[in-house]
Amino acid sequence: MPKLWTETVEAHRRAVRDATLDATAALVAEHGLAAVTMSRIAEETGIGRATLYKYFADVNAILMAWHERQVMSHLHHLAAIRNQAGDPGQQLEDVLEAFALISHEDHGTELTALLHRGPHVARAQQHLQEFVQNLLAEGARAGVLRSDVAPSELASYCLHALTAASSLPSKAAVQRLVSVTLAGLRPPLH
Amino acid sequence: MPKLWTETVEAHRRAVRDATLDATAALVAEHGLAAVTMSRIAEETGIGRATLYKYFADVNAILMAWHERQVMSHLHHLAAIRNQAGDPGQQLEDVLEAFALISHEDHGTELTALLHRGPHVARAQQHLQEFVQNLLAEGARAGVLRSDVAPSELASYCLHALTAASSLPSKAAVQRLVSVTLAGLRPPLH
Repeated sequence: MPKLWTETVEAHRRAVRDATLDATAALVAEHGLAAVTMSRIAEETGIGRATLYKYFADVNAILMAWHERQVMSHLHHLAAIRNQAGDPGQQLEDVLEAFALISHEDHGTELTALLHRGPHVARAQQHLQEFVQNLLAEGARAGVLRSDVAPSELASYCLHALTAASSLPSKAAVQRLVSVTLAGLRPPLH
Repeated sequence: MPKLWTETVEAHRRAVRDATLDATAALVAEHGLAAVTMSRIAEETGIGRATLYKYFADVNAILMAWHERQVMSHLHHLAAIRNQAGDPGQQLEDVLEAFALISHEDHGTELTALLHRGPHVARAQQHLQEFVQNLLAEGARAGVLRSDVAPSELASYCLHALTAASSLPSKAAVQRLVSVTLAGLRPPLH
């Protein structure tokens, strides 16, 4: 098959897949998880039910794929934020604030509990842990962050501390949480 | 009924209840959740199966009661530790370290996930939040802790940060986590 044809088919498949994920997320947000069926999703996406089943086995598989796309987009967002910031201290501050805001918006719902059982979540957490760990190591080398505790332990500390953002009432409270968490990362006074 | 009789009956009931909880916890620890039945628990406790059913409806109810007793004993332990320590700063440090060690020992197992759905857990978390919040308010008044962020927000921060202890490899790592978390609570430098 000519290359253009393959590329077009591939682009079409991605578009159908993306449209399915968007439609499913919108339906679940509007009607709740229990009310959403494969027929309803096919109708909303504007594809046949048989076609939908060629892409996904069930609603659960679509939700997992949707969540994986969300998680990947969060990770890309955090990487972009790091690349925009200047020195290691500023990079860490901006990344931790962005992570806390994601946690703040991602309230612990029934859906969250379901989605977080997916295998992609463990992979993403591992990735996030390493990403923050590298920022902490750079900050320690630059002398702006503490170097008396291993970056891996500091990464666990700040990722756990910032999940408190999910139950905070406002963005201002999230920013205070970030500044308190960062205070724990500064070099101790001697 | 004479008072002595009522008291004796009450003491007997508590003893049977406690023995049932102990036996169930031991059986689950040894054989796993799926292998434990009401008959097995009755046999191990040394009471009749019919008697056991007068106390508890099923294995799940026994496990919930066992976990509630565990959680209450942790809260009492933390209160005792606060009462032993001197000034507010020391009280907070000792309580947070004890909490982190409890989290460290309470690894996230299948059983933990089940038990944490019980309504007693939400109550205990609320109690713990208020308990730590009061210590933080006292520390702020004494000038040893920061007063620029509300004690309720600081309590969320440190309880979340310290749950990182559940995945740390050693008690030394837990102690470093406590000291990093405490550093976030000190008055900021001007």
